[in-house]
Amino acid sequence: MTTLDFWFDPASTYSWLSAARLDGVAEGAGVATRWRPFLLGPIFKAQGWDNSPFNLYPAKGRYMWRDMERQCAALGLRLARPDPAAGQFPSNSLLAARCAVAALEQDWGRRFVREVYRAQFSDLADIADPAVLSAIARRLGQDGEKLLALAQSDAVKAQLRANTEEAQAIGIFGAPFFTVGDEPFWGNDRLDEAVRWAAGQA
Amino acid sequence: MTTLDFWFDPASTYSWLSAARLDGVAEGAGVATRWRPFLLGPIFKAQGWDNSPFNLYPAKGRYMWRDMERQCAALGLRLARPDPAAGQFPSNSLLAARCAVAALEQDWGRRFVREVYRAQFSDLADIADPAVLSAIARRLGQDGEKLLALAQSDAVKAQLRANTEEAQAIGIFGAPFFTVGDEPFWGNDRLDEAVRWAAGQA
Repeated sequence: MTTLDFWFDPASTYSWLSAARLDGVAEGAGVATRWRPFLLGPIFKAQGWDNSPFNLYPAKGRYMWRDMERQCAALGLRLARPDPAAGQFPSNSLLAARCAVAALEQDWGRRFVREVYRAQFSDLADIADPAVLSAIARRLGQDGEKLLALAQSDAVKAQLRANTEEAQAIGIFGAPFFTVGDEPFWGNDRLDEAVRWAAGQA
Repeated sequence: MTTLDFWFDPASTYSWLSAARLDGVAEGAGVATRWRPFLLGPIFKAQGWDNSPFNLYPAKGRYMWRDMERQCAALGLRLARPDPAAGQFPSNSLLAARCAVAALEQDWGRRFVREVYRAQFSDLADIADPAVLSAIARRLGQDGEKLLALAQSDAVKAQLRANTEEAQAIGIFGAPFFTVGDEPFWGNDRLDEAVRWAAGQA
């Protein structure tokens, strides 16, 4: 069976939309998915950016937040606008991405990822704060301290590093990103096409 | 009646898709449109780019051409890949944009714009060449020399400059772009939503 890889950074706004939508669309089409947390930071840095392009290019940033308002409204997601000047965007997503790698080994991992996005973008919680991440795990009935310990294990750190290196090697330049074998799809707007592509390869 | 403004640069790949689709979608929804040629060059320059981002960021460029192949195939458009190293992309679109401003005063203007895109992206014609532009007008049964003369008139030059300044002032950072009053929509992927928005304002 062809697998669709879903590449996301926990700090990425549009990745939230895909995290919220993907399971429903892919399950409906009978497409298996693999969730691949990675970090955009090193990839942006290689392009010469030391910040989110939405902060570096203000017109683009203003548009993104307005577009996110509309997209979130259509999906029933509640969006609060973080204040980049107060350091609220982009989040430092290193620990959240490591927690995601660890959580995705469990059947509650995808819910954890969606809750991390919701905490960040609905409640403006600081997802760099270990207490925020462990509280999310606890709300899902899991052991938050165990998740944090796992997130700091060498195996999880290495897995996240490997994901990011693989993303960069295959030409991923933004998130969300989907791959079906070598076929690349960028952005939440290509989620449905990526799922159809995977279904057609089955 | 609410009007939807369609902002495009003749050198913009994704604008071709919107030029090909817009009339059909908007007419079906009873939405009036205004076609607004402008130049991305000065806007990119203000962002610190002296070239297309698709050339400046190779991974993004590789993805764009693959994505364009898929989108064009879905729309029945034939895409030839220009060679940026041979100066085939992006085109110098100044004269084509001026011709578009002049042609759009006539009822054949939109067809002219679509033919300019087709010549450029299906046949790799150089749309900076006056002979290419006048030949397109002639194929539409029009006076190509008269169009070129109009394109070089002070009124048309001023109109294109005003469009570009307005685009920059309202925060347009890429093409295609759609506006319905103050509401902004970026990209061919937002064409349908922009038309629905305009229809809802009617």
